[in-house]
Amino acid sequence: MSMIKMLGIDMIDVAGSGHPGIVLSSAPIIYTIYSRHMNINTTDSNWISRDRFVLSAGHGSALLYSTLFLAGYDIGSEDIKKFRRLGYKTPGHPEYGVTPGVDMSTGPLGQGFASSVGMAIGEKMLESKFVIPESSKSLAGKSLINFDVYCLVGDGDLMEGISYEAASLAGTLNLDNLIVLYDSNNISLDGDTSNTFTENVLDRFKAMGWFTKKVMDGTNIEEIDKAISDGKKSGRPSFIEVKTIIGNGSVNAGTSKVHGSPLSKDDIKSLKESLGFSNTPFYVDMDAVKAFREKINDRSGRKYEMWARLYNEYKNTLDIRNSDNLTKLLKGEQIDLLKDRWVFNKEEKKSARDINEEIMQEIEKQVFNFVGGSADLSSSTKTRLKNAKDVKDEHFDGKNIWFGVREHAMGAILNGLALVGFKPFGSTFLSFSDYMKPAIRMSALMNLPVNYIFTHDSILIGPDGPTHQPIEQLVSLRSTPNLNVFRPADANEILGSWNMMLNSTCPNALVLYRQDGMLLDKTNPGFVKFGAYPVRKERENLHGIIIATGSEVKTAVMIAEQLYNEYRLDLRVVSMPCMELFEKQDEKYKAMLLPQGYKTIVIEAGSSFSWYKYVYNEKYLITLDRFGVSGTKNEVEKEMNFSFEQIKERIMGLFR
Amino acid sequence: MSMIKMLGIDMIDVAGSGHPGIVLSSAPIIYTIYSRHMNINTTDSNWISRDRFVLSAGHGSALLYSTLFLAGYDIGSEDIKKFRRLGYKTPGHPEYGVTPGVDMSTGPLGQGFASSVGMAIGEKMLESKFVIPESSKSLAGKSLINFDVYCLVGDGDLMEGISYEAASLAGTLNLDNLIVLYDSNNISLDGDTSNTFTENVLDRFKAMGWFTKKVMDGTNIEEIDKAISDGKKSGRPSFIEVKTIIGNGSVNAGTSKVHGSPLSKDDIKSLKESLGFSNTPFYVDMDAVKAFREKINDRSGRKYEMWARLYNEYKNTLDIRNSDNLTKLLKGEQIDLLKDRWVFNKEEKKSARDINEEIMQEIEKQVFNFVGGSADLSSSTKTRLKNAKDVKDEHFDGKNIWFGVREHAMGAILNGLALVGFKPFGSTFLSFSDYMKPAIRMSALMNLPVNYIFTHDSILIGPDGPTHQPIEQLVSLRSTPNLNVFRPADANEILGSWNMMLNSTCPNALVLYRQDGMLLDKTNPGFVKFGAYPVRKERENLHGIIIATGSEVKTAVMIAEQLYNEYRLDLRVVSMPCMELFEKQDEKYKAMLLPQGYKTIVIEAGSSFSWYKYVYNEKYLITLDRFGVSGTKNEVEKEMNFSFEQIKERIMGLFR
Repeated sequence: MSMIKMLGIDMIDVAGSGHPGIVLSSAPIIYTIYSRHMNINTTDSNWISRDRFVLSAGHGSALLYSTLFLAGYDIGSEDIKKFRRLGYKTPGHPEYGVTPGVDMSTGPLGQGFASSVGMAIGEKMLESKFVIPESSKSLAGKSLINFDVYCLVGDGDLMEGISYEAASLAGTLNLDNLIVLYDSNNISLDGDTSNTFTENVLDRFKAMGWFTKKVMDGTNIEEIDKAISDGKKSGRPSFIEVKTIIGNGSVNAGTSKVHGSPLSKDDIKSLKESLGFSNTPFYVDMDAVKAFREKINDRSGRKYEMWARLYNEYKNTLDIRNSDNLTKLLKGEQIDLLKDRWVFNKEEKKSARDINEEIMQEIEKQVFNFVGGSADLSSSTKTRLKNAKDVKDEHFDGKNIWFGVREHAMGAILNGLALVGFKPFGSTFLSFSDYMKPAIRMSALMNLPVNYIFTHDSILIGPDGPTHQPIEQLVSLRSTPNLNVFRPADANEILGSWNMMLNSTCPNALVLYRQDGMLLDKTNPGFVKFGAYPVRKERENLHGIIIATGSEVKTAVMIAEQLYNEYRLDLRVVSMPCMELFEKQDEKYKAMLLPQGYKTIVIEAGSSFSWYKYVYNEKYLITLDRFGVSGTKNEVEKEMNFSFEQIKERIMGLFR
Repeated sequence: MSMIKMLGIDMIDVAGSGHPGIVLSSAPIIYTIYSRHMNINTTDSNWISRDRFVLSAGHGSALLYSTLFLAGYDIGSEDIKKFRRLGYKTPGHPEYGVTPGVDMSTGPLGQGFASSVGMAIGEKMLESKFVIPESSKSLAGKSLINFDVYCLVGDGDLMEGISYEAASLAGTLNLDNLIVLYDSNNISLDGDTSNTFTENVLDRFKAMGWFTKKVMDGTNIEEIDKAISDGKKSGRPSFIEVKTIIGNGSVNAGTSKVHGSPLSKDDIKSLKESLGFSNTPFYVDMDAVKAFREKINDRSGRKYEMWARLYNEYKNTLDIRNSDNLTKLLKGEQIDLLKDRWVFNKEEKKSARDINEEIMQEIEKQVFNFVGGSADLSSSTKTRLKNAKDVKDEHFDGKNIWFGVREHAMGAILNGLALVGFKPFGSTFLSFSDYMKPAIRMSALMNLPVNYIFTHDSILIGPDGPTHQPIEQLVSLRSTPNLNVFRPADANEILGSWNMMLNSTCPNALVLYRQDGMLLDKTNPGFVKFGAYPVRKERENLHGIIIATGSEVKTAVMIAEQLYNEYRLDLRVVSMPCMELFEKQDEKYKAMLLPQGYKTIVIEAGSSFSWYKYVYNEKYLITLDRFGVSGTKNEVEKEMNFSFEQIKERIMGLFR
């Protein structure tokens, strides 16, 4: 434990920045978790049934790295010495995929807590799925997947609303595989929490159905250990408040001075002396390390061996389909939705959300780890998997998760689900994507295959008015790195979008309109992969190009047809269901589809910022840059200069 | 009360959409509030000392409109009949400024609750400010401002994290002028809350220091009335759970069917019969209305008269400065920061946040209602008003609010503060602007003069890594309608930005860099109002233009100087501290500053989406579209192809 402290402090000292406060206050907590509870295999750091540890207070990265290094993960002493430097496994905040043993990226407060809830839900769902069947004798009834999720949080995590949202749901679902430890030190960055955070946190968690316990002496490993053990036996999610002293051992212990600035050289020296060590930077006591590793490996090793037995038994006793699912879980799978014949009814008027509902039912049949839900809008977003059960307390063999009116936690929980092996989805209205943006950004940072479904995608929803009518949301999503945004025009493109989304290694947003639309003549599911393609080709001579997305594609095609019939104005119409995929095409394809020297117009019921790159100037943008209004659809579109006739008139005006 | 129900149901019926469930469940609650507690003046609907009512469950707009109509506000029967239609005072969700008596726009859940907390904080601050002094005999010690804030919430509001954040702070600040009533009907849009929300809500609020009470019979006005009265006497913020039946009186009462779809004609008929009325649409019983209005006006009238006395006394007894503040509060004020001589030290290297800190101290002296704080980052954002006190329990004469790590609630609380007369500010890192986006959108929708201060504005912060390095945040803010985004280059431009911000009728975001910068030669506070202006003019012949913002302006100027000296390449450099203001300039100014036909380059450490409109194609954009990395500032900028030398090379390449 002293090792963890000293290495952490040395790392911060050399880096010249970092957070010593939590290193010194929480070292006993993380030491207790790793030495006495975590079942891990440092040589198989992605072991699917390993316990997870999430440092929600991600600014304590030095604490985590020193622990993982001492535990024996593939982290070199150079990594430790080059904390916060480019190219090493020890970035400023923990990054998933960069450091072995880091189970998720953290830093923005509250995200780790909420994603831990997602991991715990995911564990329950996997556990109920991968059970050794009766046909096996000795191991029948045991599950191949069985782990606990540990999460270390600070005051900041708990003040963030997202942690409350997730905690309330964890209580409702009674996630007894989740153990949250709270480094309760009464200090946040700006000072004493008496200024900001005087609630009784334990009582609050108790009110949400959690097992709660307070550890009065945060340096007492036995006490911390007992609280964790009691929590695990409680049959409820556990919240353990550990009273600590921030920067314990520093001259500034107990004050905000020690929260986020390196200790002075003198302070480091006297701290190490008090721990019984000399002031050699990055000194490692190999005996202590050996003892630490033995504690971890003795316990974990037994569990790992058991898992290997279960794995073999599972492979041998199960029918091919279940065995397949295991392979898919461990290795991923290529999904081809287009191999089936899909027949959509040409005559039927349907909204994108209705068609999407049908397609999702089919995906549910084909993709075993396709699960998700809605932030209390599934009746409106229509994303319920009708043939699957609900995920409820003690019934985790379902696929439909009721997130409640908790968009932000939903996003973070989806991240947690993806981190343990799901291809999850979550739905709400596009306007409320704002509520979950920080979680969406985390999906993108971690390359997680999370699918966000956003319906009610424009002012054309009408009466609900400007609070519910998105304007800037599309560009906000498109400008987020590493996120694909799909805005399909009709059934074909929704299908094609899903075919891309289910095979992607990054998160996706599927943006759907609410109003009625019809299957278009020239849309093609197979072309969505190009991001953009023609849905109306010019008949004779190309006079200009209209780019459109979503519900505006039909408008564009109809206007183009009318303008051709009425004036022989010959326009190509390009549907662009996914700008990110189009931008990845080669220059030849791009130039063929959108040749230079032609007037190019964009129609989209969203911010112009998305589209300047494709047009000569703003006159060619038929987009929306002010807030909408409440009224009928017809009233709204006319008021916003966005009715069919107005758009047609504007386009004609550009060719006069 | 029956009137409220019937009108509400008729409105929804004619509109063909709306939420009857809450109209029927909450009519007794809103009736009790208005008939027995709210002090208002329907003919002076903006009376500064009126009690406030916030319908956080904004989908219940019909409930609110029918109540306000019956209370006697300037709402016509045509408005009631044209619910959710364009051009009437009854939009789909309540809109501030559209309907007299609507104290804030609501709809996105949780916002109303959190802004109520802001109003309650604001009331306390105003109350402590506008006290009749000792020199007055009879009224000494009384305050001119004295009101309560009532808020009606549903399950959805309480599930949203923002409401928890605000509630926790309300408990810490012990806001005894806040009374929240919870329409507890066990049903949300998707179904029974047993699926999503099983916590003990009252216990949770108790844990946060609130007075709590449960009203078992939500149709019992006496019981509701008593709970409110008890709450007001409790000396704490009050949370009253009123057990109701959603859609009470409808055949679908108690189910989610009645949440968000109009009732059937038969259902309406039988409902009205059970209330003792015939089925005449929009029938109004004038006797009942008269009785309702008398109840409101008898009580409120006395308070209004008292206020008028206080107002006169205050005007007469107070010294000019305090009297001035009252005028400013009631009528607003024109602020001219530039009238003073500001001398910034040319030689001193300072970060934008440090300079901003100095300027804010000066603003605090000049602008009496300039108050705010930080989401636990004031030590880093440096936005503390050093000469003012902290706002703390029982000490509301301060100006510095400790929001805790609660960005989202901070935004909504700033909205509440602005709604009661402040020019508030709140600060955090730019990366975390995502956490508060829904509240920022509400500021913009309501035209509130809220000032968001975002520091640590780019990858150039270095070691904290990608979670803390903004990329898409600038365009996300710029694309939000009705929000001005300032990214000043140096002290002069920060000053100029504040001069615009303090006089604006819309919200503003001030985006500041963390790294050191110096005062530039040609920047000018007075030119910020144009949004963009030249900071380096071409010497002889214009060869091209560089547009830059924030810390990149200095880079641009230095590169332009070097390119001129080395190659006689003569570039104009344009600083664009505020794109929104530049876009409002006339075509002549725009064409003069950015003449067509010249190569125009943009340098900004943020998403390219902001900038396509000003350049020929993406080659001319020196911007950032992928996530950053953790490392030293030098490592990061080099890795991201954004170091001084790399940028210079890229620009030279464009002129070869």
